[in-house]
Amino acid sequence: MFTLENLQQIIKDNIEELNFNQSPKELYDPINYILDLGGKRLRPALCLLACDMFDGEIQQALNPALGIEIFHNFTLLHDDIMDEAPIRRGKQTVHLKWNPNVAILSGDTMMALAYEYVMKAPKEVLQEVFSVFNQTAIEVCEGQQYDMNFETDKKVSISDYLNMIRLKTAVLLAGSLKIGALIGKANKKDAENLYLFGENLGIAFQLKDDLLDAYSDEEKFGKKTGGDIVTNKKTFLYLKAFELADGKTKESLADYFNGDFADPVQKIIGVKEIFQKIEVDIATNKEIDNYYQRALSYLDKVNTTQDKKSELLKFADQLKQRDY
Amino acid sequence: MFTLENLQQIIKDNIEELNFNQSPKELYDPINYILDLGGKRLRPALCLLACDMFDGEIQQALNPALGIEIFHNFTLLHDDIMDEAPIRRGKQTVHLKWNPNVAILSGDTMMALAYEYVMKAPKEVLQEVFSVFNQTAIEVCEGQQYDMNFETDKKVSISDYLNMIRLKTAVLLAGSLKIGALIGKANKKDAENLYLFGENLGIAFQLKDDLLDAYSDEEKFGKKTGGDIVTNKKTFLYLKAFELADGKTKESLADYFNGDFADPVQKIIGVKEIFQKIEVDIATNKEIDNYYQRALSYLDKVNTTQDKKSELLKFADQLKQRDY
Repeated sequence: MFTLENLQQIIKDNIEELNFNQSPKELYDPINYILDLGGKRLRPALCLLACDMFDGEIQQALNPALGIEIFHNFTLLHDDIMDEAPIRRGKQTVHLKWNPNVAILSGDTMMALAYEYVMKAPKEVLQEVFSVFNQTAIEVCEGQQYDMNFETDKKVSISDYLNMIRLKTAVLLAGSLKIGALIGKANKKDAENLYLFGENLGIAFQLKDDLLDAYSDEEKFGKKTGGDIVTNKKTFLYLKAFELADGKTKESLADYFNGDFADPVQKIIGVKEIFQKIEVDIATNKEIDNYYQRALSYLDKVNTTQDKKSELLKFADQLKQRDY
Repeated sequence: MFTLENLQQIIKDNIEELNFNQSPKELYDPINYILDLGGKRLRPALCLLACDMFDGEIQQALNPALGIEIFHNFTLLHDDIMDEAPIRRGKQTVHLKWNPNVAILSGDTMMALAYEYVMKAPKEVLQEVFSVFNQTAIEVCEGQQYDMNFETDKKVSISDYLNMIRLKTAVLLAGSLKIGALIGKANKKDAENLYLFGENLGIAFQLKDDLLDAYSDEEKFGKKTGGDIVTNKKTFLYLKAFELADGKTKESLADYFNGDFADPVQKIIGVKEIFQKIEVDIATNKEIDNYYQRALSYLDKVNTTQDKKSELLKFADQLKQRDY
């Protein structure tokens, strides 16, 4: 049995060996560049882990897992254009290092390469693997569009938000696990329960991210806290705070977010005071715990040994406990 | 047996029935919009025609054919962003009607939808169909990148140019025919010969387009002639003219293309005088004829009745004879 760390290392080694040195260079250089920026390689490692949980040889899931990582990096590449992000993993983003046209087209090519690798799955499960992957790809696009819409939408409900993060973040974790399980010859029910485990855990993960943005230890988190507050991002905390607050507190919260609040440090302090007062962290932790428990209940239903589940349990626990 | 026109109509009817009315609207509205802009639907019709040339039921090729048309429109959508094109088929382009981010993301979604439809091919040929389609998708991206590179590249050879139009234009025609043939249960050799027919015909088609841009009857062609001359586009005519011209003529040609030539009408007249003098139209027609003849030689090798080939022969002939 492999640990998740083993599998992350296997993926890292294999990504390093990927080298698209075809022509034209302007198309393939950015692909190699973004794939070499690093990252935890969680999604493909989870794909291998799920394969290993059943009767699968992880070797059979390796190419599809690499396809998933290529797809994930494609979404980062295109999202960075849309968000006008200057930095990705400490380096210049592709659309700045080259230009937006190169970033669009390299991304398109990565999407085709992702399909190429995913479609190296064993023939017996190819159609099912394709169908999970393709559905996931479409849903990730839907999630990104909702995320962009929410920037200007006046009314975003908590359930709209939860659906957005499900699509944008959770389904790819879920799909990675399901694809691995299918290649590992899991039956449909077990594969689906692993999917639901991943989906719920993915939502918990994103909610934790929202929480850490406001509440983390800056040194451990590796970035300034309060970034979402300054940019008026409609996170779970933001939406929940408006739900919980009333009277003057609500007005005050609205003032912080509606106007052009000049001093970001003062804004963070002010908003966090309100967050503390209405205990939005407690409400968020409660929601995280709901999703976490739901995830575990689906994992519980999967027919494999407890030993085989231990790595996923450990992983889920780490995501929940992390303070960075 | 179906005529190409029959099949184009079948595709038109089926595209009209496609209606992606999922949420979010901002993602799916542009997809419906670009698919409803019309067009000749040649690629998917050729896919059905190729299927019909063997023992295929065109119904089995219908979804993959629609996938090819969705893919083709995805490339138009993303190309229009890159080229900053304001108009597509007489209507506002997606990145202007909505915005570039919507255009990027709707395009990404169309690519996934294209795979979804292509992968509805019959199970027996699924892996081969996928492999042709995916290779084609990657090559079309490569072609677009070369095309962008050539805008600023100082040295572009005629063979570079022919390779670019092969990738950007011809392989999708070729792939459409091959996919149809595979679904029609053609053997590999026949499918490959149809591919090569399409590839060579596609190159001839693009060369004819280059020629018509400078030499067509404006009323029939539906746009002003000389557009490529004004924008210094390195077409076959441009590259061939520099190859054929020498001495003062070459200098004069270089002057037209290097400087900021103020009056476009004068520039078109001047360049066309040189084109006439060195008979670049004759050289281009010779090249078109080479590719056309090569295309026919591959069609000739395909094992099916002459009757079954007649529609493709008619189609090839029309492409060659067209003066608009």
